[in-house]
Amino acid sequence: MWEQLAPIGRDARTGGYRRHAWTPVDGELREWFRVQALARGLTHEVDRNGNQWAWLGDPTVGDAVVTGSHLDSVPNGGAFDGPLGVVSAFAALDELRARGRTGRRPLGVVAFADEEGARFGVACVGSRLAVGALEPERARALTDAGGVTLADAMLGAGHDPEGLGPDPERLRRVGVFVELHIEQGRALAELDRPVGVGSLIWPHGRWRFDFTGEANHAGTTRLTDRRDPMLSYAHTVLAARKRARLAGALATFGKVTVEPGGVNAIPSRVSGWLDARAPDGPTLTELVAAIQAGAGERAARDGVELAVTRESHTGAQWFTPALRDSVAARLDNAPVLPTGAGHDAGVLSAVVPTAMLYVRNPTGVSHAPAEHADQRDCLAGVAALAEVLEGLVCR
Amino acid sequence: MWEQLAPIGRDARTGGYRRHAWTPVDGELREWFRVQALARGLTHEVDRNGNQWAWLGDPTVGDAVVTGSHLDSVPNGGAFDGPLGVVSAFAALDELRARGRTGRRPLGVVAFADEEGARFGVACVGSRLAVGALEPERARALTDAGGVTLADAMLGAGHDPEGLGPDPERLRRVGVFVELHIEQGRALAELDRPVGVGSLIWPHGRWRFDFTGEANHAGTTRLTDRRDPMLSYAHTVLAARKRARLAGALATFGKVTVEPGGVNAIPSRVSGWLDARAPDGPTLTELVAAIQAGAGERAARDGVELAVTRESHTGAQWFTPALRDSVAARLDNAPVLPTGAGHDAGVLSAVVPTAMLYVRNPTGVSHAPAEHADQRDCLAGVAALAEVLEGLVCR
Repeated sequence: MWEQLAPIGRDARTGGYRRHAWTPVDGELREWFRVQALARGLTHEVDRNGNQWAWLGDPTVGDAVVTGSHLDSVPNGGAFDGPLGVVSAFAALDELRARGRTGRRPLGVVAFADEEGARFGVACVGSRLAVGALEPERARALTDAGGVTLADAMLGAGHDPEGLGPDPERLRRVGVFVELHIEQGRALAELDRPVGVGSLIWPHGRWRFDFTGEANHAGTTRLTDRRDPMLSYAHTVLAARKRARLAGALATFGKVTVEPGGVNAIPSRVSGWLDARAPDGPTLTELVAAIQAGAGERAARDGVELAVTRESHTGAQWFTPALRDSVAARLDNAPVLPTGAGHDAGVLSAVVPTAMLYVRNPTGVSHAPAEHADQRDCLAGVAALAEVLEGLVCR
Repeated sequence: MWEQLAPIGRDARTGGYRRHAWTPVDGELREWFRVQALARGLTHEVDRNGNQWAWLGDPTVGDAVVTGSHLDSVPNGGAFDGPLGVVSAFAALDELRARGRTGRRPLGVVAFADEEGARFGVACVGSRLAVGALEPERARALTDAGGVTLADAMLGAGHDPEGLGPDPERLRRVGVFVELHIEQGRALAELDRPVGVGSLIWPHGRWRFDFTGEANHAGTTRLTDRRDPMLSYAHTVLAARKRARLAGALATFGKVTVEPGGVNAIPSRVSGWLDARAPDGPTLTELVAAIQAGAGERAARDGVELAVTRESHTGAQWFTPALRDSVAARLDNAPVLPTGAGHDAGVLSAVVPTAMLYVRNPTGVSHAPAEHADQRDCLAGVAALAEVLEGLVCR
């Protein structure tokens, strides 16, 4: 399976992947999924939100055991984030069949659409639409960097955007969902364990900090006459890091835009995007409030105005505790880990019993070409997933 | 004259100007210049480097008195930077004719091509090519943000790029050059004088700071595992400002790019452009060395690599001292001012006796839509320029 999947959307120069939703590359990934389903004699279907499902047995019976992840990537992403969960799902299904342990519950493999949100700026679009956590109107109107709407991108890929929306009938088929994913940190590496079980996804969000000063000539404007928003921004970057460290949380500025952006022009505006995550909601709220207050104080000293806009926010998402405990017990008391990263499983946890498995990432690198998992650990992941699924379908 | 010039290249939203070299807007400005020349019965010519000249009398006689500036702008620039010097040149010539004081020396008005360098990244292209300070090969290969070369842009505007290069024959015609320009600071406002005389252009340059770290997931990578170049960049922005203040110099970061630039991705690379200027060469050298050393130390602490590239550098450019003193004396002992901004007059000062006049800028705003000079001061500028030209042509 990997051999056919590996070249799709890979940049020969960096070795990284660019697999953005509803692009021709995404179409190749979808075709790969369909071929995998049909080659196994599974029923293949695409739901109204563009998520792909492969079924063993009749899903309309309900109480199905479903596993899977996503196939899309961030810009210049790694090979494992997403695809490892889909490949492992098919491999675990093969394993159960080989053992003759497919049980009586329907068994499904799913690939959710547009998990990374790399093209249209909103993550987990396919699963959020399905559970009703994203308005279809808003989804259709999302635009990519080239000004193309999600609706037009879907149309171009042959999917009808008018059908987007909550899909309770389909979700009612799902009795339990298990997502396997490469770990995006080094906790398992430090514990020397190949597989772990998820406890929760940290609350997290994105805030845009717009610092507005006054454009002027960099070669003639005295320092004391300046209202330079780059200074306020720079101070905020450093302060956010420090406050996150003190709070045991995470804060990152990974995107910044400058107007007018000339080398010899003091900027009129600097916009920086804060990604902040914390172990619990109050800590996150306090962290962002403190960063905002510090940014405002510095901006005032620089003669700069500050406006902060919350662009997205997701509260803590707990995986089903009883399921988490039984899965961990079945996997030789696998370690139970929180994560700061969002997943479709987190979205589904609001409506369906959900568990998450992680496979060791020796370097912790994620969302970059150097992301890696050892083959031995990937096979351990498949074995663990098969073990968990067997326990569920044959219970 | 202003009425016809004002609407060309103006953005109705901001009131700022976008008059980039060799665009259709630039073509309109050139046509405006040609019409102004012909309407006055002046000889109009475009030299091999795209600079426009309007002559009263036969320039081949030599020892001409020339005045002028440029018509192009920075992105979202003001109305006065450049055009005030060209409009004032024509107005002063009208004034001398009205007085019957055009003298025996040929009198020329010039508009230099691509002074701001806003499109192709190199300033004073027309004057630098003429004096041999810019290689024609390098000039032709310059590209804009859309990948269009300067050579192709010239061709598209009907100018042959093969002719670019030193133009000693044309420069030998010029006995003296006087450029009038809006002041780009508030020195005249504080001195309560409408017109000043230039002493020198500060040494200045551009340095690109490339901070290279490691891309990773902003939601899962522990702070201690990060190699985040945004931190090193932010620290350098603040340190550069502080060091410039202590040195009595200027340092600005007005442009920054981030890779991969995702909100949830720790950057792999942050590139920031330092614009630095100082009253003398050694101060500038020390300033940049200190900023670079501090940036390197911080980068090392962040696990980030730093490479610094000098993209451009111009030493101190002194306007001709004897001319400066006689001009200031003729203008009621006008104040003599240094500036941090480059000008075509600075380029020409290497080969021709050159003087510079400044017109008061009450707010000091420059390279922005709010740039302004009072009409009274503009008229004072024309009167001063006419006075200086009269002294030169009738000496």
